[in-house]
Amino acid sequence: MDFSSRLIETAVNEFAKLPGVGRKTALRYVLHLLRQEEKEVSAFSEAFLRLKQELKYCKNCHNISDQELCSICINPRRDHSLICVVEDIRDVMAIENTGQYNGIYHLLGGIISPMDGVGPGDLNINRLVEKVAGNQVKEVIMALRTTMEGDTTIFYLYKKLSSYTVILSTLARGVSIGDELEYADEITLGRSITNRTLYEKSLK
Amino acid sequence: MDFSSRLIETAVNEFAKLPGVGRKTALRYVLHLLRQEEKEVSAFSEAFLRLKQELKYCKNCHNISDQELCSICINPRRDHSLICVVEDIRDVMAIENTGQYNGIYHLLGGIISPMDGVGPGDLNINRLVEKVAGNQVKEVIMALRTTMEGDTTIFYLYKKLSSYTVILSTLARGVSIGDELEYADEITLGRSITNRTLYEKSLK
Repeated sequence: MDFSSRLIETAVNEFAKLPGVGRKTALRYVLHLLRQEEKEVSAFSEAFLRLKQELKYCKNCHNISDQELCSICINPRRDHSLICVVEDIRDVMAIENTGQYNGIYHLLGGIISPMDGVGPGDLNINRLVEKVAGNQVKEVIMALRTTMEGDTTIFYLYKKLSSYTVILSTLARGVSIGDELEYADEITLGRSITNRTLYEKSLK
Repeated sequence: MDFSSRLIETAVNEFAKLPGVGRKTALRYVLHLLRQEEKEVSAFSEAFLRLKQELKYCKNCHNISDQELCSICINPRRDHSLICVVEDIRDVMAIENTGQYNGIYHLLGGIISPMDGVGPGDLNINRLVEKVAGNQVKEVIMALRTTMEGDTTIFYLYKKLSSYTVILSTLARGVSIGDELEYADEITLGRSITNRTLYEKSLK
C-alpha cells in the first residue's frame, strides 16, 4: 500500500505490529484516530506510555499490579499453600471469574514454544521451584492450555517439581458443560471416559 | 472483566474505542505491548500523537498530506478538470492502485448517514460546489460506496451540482471480473443487463 503521508505510514506500521492486525485494519484504526479530537488522541497515546512506565509486577506471583504485591497475594483469606500455575493475566482473570478458586497464582509469562523461540529459560520457572523447595506449598495446579506447547510445559514443570513433596495436578479434561457427545472430538471424549468421575462427585 | 490494575484498565478502554475492537481483543493488544521494550512502546505511543499534531490536509482536495497540497493535486500531469468524489483516503488508495485514473480527487470525509448522525453539513461538500461553480471542472465522478448511504449522498450531490454545466457520473455497476453469474446477486445482475456495454467497448 502506498500512503500519501509518512506520518500515516508510521502510524499504520505501529498498529500493524499488534497481534492479528494487518495493514488494512491498521489503516482503519488510524483513520478512526484522525477523526477524534486531539485531546482524545493524546489520552490514547499516553495510556500506553504510562502503562509501560508505571506498571509493576507482583513480587510473589508476577501478576500485574499497581503495588509491590497484587491484590490476590496480599489477601490473607486466600490459601497460600495452593498455587495455580498459569500462562498470563488472561488466565488469572478467567479463573477468578469462575469464583471457584481460593488459592494464589504463579504466572509463567508464556509457555514453552520452540516454534516461537520461547524456551524454559524465558519463563518465570525458577521462582516457582524456589517456592516449592521452601516447603510452604501443598499443591501446584498446572492450569495451562491443552495444546502441544501446554503439555510440553506441564511435562517440564513435572520433571522440575516431582522430586519435592508436593501434589502436582492439572485441570480436569473432558466434555464441556452443554456439549452434545455427538460433536465432541474423539480424544476429549476418550479421555472423559477413561477419567470418569463418580456420580456423587459430579454433583458437587 | 475485572482487571487487577487501573493502568491496564485505562489502556484496555483506550484500545476498545477503536472500531471493531472489543475488550478481549483490547486486552490481547495491551498484553502484547507489555511484552515489548519500553523504547518500542514509546515509538508506538508517539506515532499517534505526532500523526494528530503534525498531519495536514491538502487545501485543494482535503486528502491527507505532509505539505499544503497533496502529491496528486501538485502533479501538473494530472487532469485537474476531472474530479473524483470519494469518502476518504482509503478510496483514494484503492483507485490509485488501479492505475486507471488520471484526474484529481475530492474527499468528502464521510457519507451522509443519519443513523450515525452524519448530515450534509458535516461533509466537505461546499468546497466541491465552489470548485464546480468556478467553471474549471468538466466532469465529477461520484465514486461512493454502493449502499443506501452512498446512494443518498450521490443523490444529494446530484441535486447540488446539476444546475451547473458539468458532467456528473457514477462508477459502473455490474458483475465483478471473475464472478460466476449463478452467484451474483439479483440487483447487480439486473443492473448489469440494463446497463450492458457494447462488446467493442468492453475490450478496452
